[in-house]
Amino acid sequence: MAPAADPGVEPGVDPSFDPRTGEQHGSVPHTAPEQVAEILRRALGAAPRIAGTSPATREAWLAAVADALRAHEDELVQLAGEETGLGADRLRGELAKCAASTVFYGAVAAEGSYLGAGTEGIGGDSTLSRWNIPVGPVAVFGASNFPFGFGVIGHDVASALGAGCPVVVKAHPAHPRLSVRLAELVADALDRAGAPVGSYALVVGFDAGLQLVDAAEITAVAFTGSQGGGMALVERAAARGVPVFAEMGTVNPVFVTTDAAADSAGIAAGFVGSFTLGAGQFCTKPGLLFAPAGAGLFDAVRAQLGQVPRAPLLTAGIARGYRAGLAGLARAAEATGAEVTGAEASAAATDIPVEPTDGYAVDPRALLVRLEDLHPGSRLLEECFGPVALICEYADAAGALDALVRLQPSLVASVFTGGPGDPESVEVVARLLGQVGRVALNAWPTGVATSWSMQHGGPWPATSRSDATSVGAGALDRFVRPVAVQNADSAHLPAALHPDNPWRIPRRIDGRLTLPTA
Amino acid sequence: MAPAADPGVEPGVDPSFDPRTGEQHGSVPHTAPEQVAEILRRALGAAPRIAGTSPATREAWLAAVADALRAHEDELVQLAGEETGLGADRLRGELAKCAASTVFYGAVAAEGSYLGAGTEGIGGDSTLSRWNIPVGPVAVFGASNFPFGFGVIGHDVASALGAGCPVVVKAHPAHPRLSVRLAELVADALDRAGAPVGSYALVVGFDAGLQLVDAAEITAVAFTGSQGGGMALVERAAARGVPVFAEMGTVNPVFVTTDAAADSAGIAAGFVGSFTLGAGQFCTKPGLLFAPAGAGLFDAVRAQLGQVPRAPLLTAGIARGYRAGLAGLARAAEATGAEVTGAEASAAATDIPVEPTDGYAVDPRALLVRLEDLHPGSRLLEECFGPVALICEYADAAGALDALVRLQPSLVASVFTGGPGDPESVEVVARLLGQVGRVALNAWPTGVATSWSMQHGGPWPATSRSDATSVGAGALDRFVRPVAVQNADSAHLPAALHPDNPWRIPRRIDGRLTLPTA
Repeated sequence: MAPAADPGVEPGVDPSFDPRTGEQHGSVPHTAPEQVAEILRRALGAAPRIAGTSPATREAWLAAVADALRAHEDELVQLAGEETGLGADRLRGELAKCAASTVFYGAVAAEGSYLGAGTEGIGGDSTLSRWNIPVGPVAVFGASNFPFGFGVIGHDVASALGAGCPVVVKAHPAHPRLSVRLAELVADALDRAGAPVGSYALVVGFDAGLQLVDAAEITAVAFTGSQGGGMALVERAAARGVPVFAEMGTVNPVFVTTDAAADSAGIAAGFVGSFTLGAGQFCTKPGLLFAPAGAGLFDAVRAQLGQVPRAPLLTAGIARGYRAGLAGLARAAEATGAEVTGAEASAAATDIPVEPTDGYAVDPRALLVRLEDLHPGSRLLEECFGPVALICEYADAAGALDALVRLQPSLVASVFTGGPGDPESVEVVARLLGQVGRVALNAWPTGVATSWSMQHGGPWPATSRSDATSVGAGALDRFVRPVAVQNADSAHLPAALHPDNPWRIPRRIDGRLTLPTA
Repeated sequence: MAPAADPGVEPGVDPSFDPRTGEQHGSVPHTAPEQVAEILRRALGAAPRIAGTSPATREAWLAAVADALRAHEDELVQLAGEETGLGADRLRGELAKCAASTVFYGAVAAEGSYLGAGTEGIGGDSTLSRWNIPVGPVAVFGASNFPFGFGVIGHDVASALGAGCPVVVKAHPAHPRLSVRLAELVADALDRAGAPVGSYALVVGFDAGLQLVDAAEITAVAFTGSQGGGMALVERAAARGVPVFAEMGTVNPVFVTTDAAADSAGIAAGFVGSFTLGAGQFCTKPGLLFAPAGAGLFDAVRAQLGQVPRAPLLTAGIARGYRAGLAGLARAAEATGAEVTGAEASAAATDIPVEPTDGYAVDPRALLVRLEDLHPGSRLLEECFGPVALICEYADAAGALDALVRLQPSLVASVFTGGPGDPESVEVVARLLGQVGRVALNAWPTGVATSWSMQHGGPWPATSRSDATSVGAGALDRFVRPVAVQNADSAHLPAALHPDNPWRIPRRIDGRLTLPTA
């Protein structure tokens, strides 16, 4: 939560840098306090009007947003490339996924299960009816690493709108010009689709973000980013009881069983591809791989890494953080006898350039660590945002699993098995489920599907609320709360509970779950 | 959360007092730290074993607990009467409701919707499956005012066991002997029904409670009580990311429309009955009634109050708190020109006896306050636990409603209307729903049904988590979290997701909610 203290940064603006060169191309002014206050007033005014719309109406709004994003693909990918250096293919893919997920959240709203609607007799003439209402204006703090997936648009914004809440987004300083352009497109699409004034707005600047967290109008906060930033928001908002759904960085483990290790070359290739994807800037990056000793995983990874080109990180701050993190890991490695790939590894430990030489580009790295050095609090396990991962070659699978489940919980784990008959896989999956939100079997953790059964959120401190997900149908549940009305007649009930079920949604009537008739 | 600092209290025990006389009858020793640690170890050991049982198995355990409670009704009501002074009728009713709700939570578990089970294809050969797992050992901090409803037994314990979690209860010092006896019965019933060792245990003493909150084994906390106690637990547990579901005291409003006020005598009688029920020691007590001026509500309440006998409060501390609260209200009333019922009202403002003269008995009171003196932070609105309530006679319904929705949120509100055609009722209910968890129409808030659609939990600070309920089917949701497994074969899936649906539960298959076939 500390503002970037870069010397020479102009006050009152978010400057736009190209990570491929380190050059600045313009800037975006911060939103003034009185402008933020006006945005909040409009959001509060929009809240009951949005809450009064049908889910199908909001489904149409979200479809309009998706259409606008697709119609401006070339422009948006170009702009995102200039501010993130992530490459056109990755950015095109992310934008397409974002548009599809925006449509998906509309469909989840229209399906109506998220409304939790039900009614029953409770003795005598009394009845009790329950349904979920939108909580009100939601503040979204997006991530640096997914300019389309988690921020000005993406999972948090679309699921909050789908659930019937106005949204105010805080622009991430890693891509201010893209943020402003995206917000224009979203606001315009919503406006033309008929959404109320105040349904959506963007603010820019650190102080504007704090103003959101402290504002009485804001009833929930969604955040994607570092543990430091997430926990600062959680604590600040806790003072007035506002929930913060923070999805934070963790070291995600991979467990390779004895049977699976027969294909060590394939696993090494997949692992390198996954932990260097997007220059290692994924919250689902596999950060620590356990493989049986003797399978040569580390050597195979070392060979693969030599073929991975340098890639720019998103910001100068992230590049400095990566270099400092690598240096810390190298020092810890020296102390523990761990082995580090790459010629510059030990140099990195002693001499970190403050200013990058070729934009924010860095080399990927891997460390071979000993099982006995992996314990909660070990410096080896501090998350290092960027293309670095640890490998632990175990002699004994049971002992490795015991050590693994004592480490910090995480968002996701991958397990590689020899197939359905692998005797180790059942216990490994069962025990890892106690530590994570998702286990990917024979798949890398970096692919996150937007679907009904996705769980993107693990036990604290992977997220601030382990019962929440920021991807998938459950994402809407973060932005509603249940209310009950006793003895309501039809004038007091929402359409969700009208006797003729006009929204055609699943409902629980007198304790029995019922589906809409076809 | 401050320990009771009663002078003369024996260290190392919870003394048992009779509120009707103030006399001590024995005591119960505190649980030693090493005993608490052993209880936690056993709970952790039981967690995976309980998690591995079917919901129907746990339904049978809960039925056995309910049977044991019913079989010991006379003994339990006697013991509870000696420690709470709540009267045999009330206690018999509460015990019967507790037994019924214990059975209900078993039925909710067996119905299986709480499992949130679903599976779908996500492209290629990949699949994603999601279901809810129990979080692990739950600590329950019960309430003083519901010896059977919220504590050693009751909503939190039964819903946590139903969801598949071991439970460790902290005994409330208001009824230590009852707590020990209840815990014996529950533990014995669970044991005979086949629940694993460690499924359920009781600890006694303030320090034992802190040990639970700080214990790595405890994964969730349920609390019912004061705002001070609840928020202290929330903050303490937040340091390690453990959710605390705290249901805290608030001033619950009642709104009487112009049409409804025609029956002012009936409303006055109902109001007095509701706010003096259980000597006013209900979290759902109606604390502030708005009625149209000219209907004579305050005078009608004053007349009714004269017929309500003195009743003992639960503990010496609560009785002192009530007298101090009344004194504060009387001082605020003097400053604002409010009118107070009862001859001793102004005396109470100046002279509060530290030791009660006839047990912990107190008189009920009502205050007539002006609308303009009701604002957030007003001393008039500080919750006073006991048989006191405020009445505000409004000249203008719209203005009164505007003032009301600016006050602190609460658990529940009641609205009295002139019937379905009452022009005011729709707006009153709609606006109050933004402030509360439940609105009771033409019913008093103190009746809380245990059913599918109950919502017992309002916006902060009424509860720490406004999306949670501590009564009704949703109570189980507090004690589970979702997990997803990608590409699971049948060996990795719970019975909830086996293709033949052995538990016969609703599931979402490829995005479509499906019901078990009859």
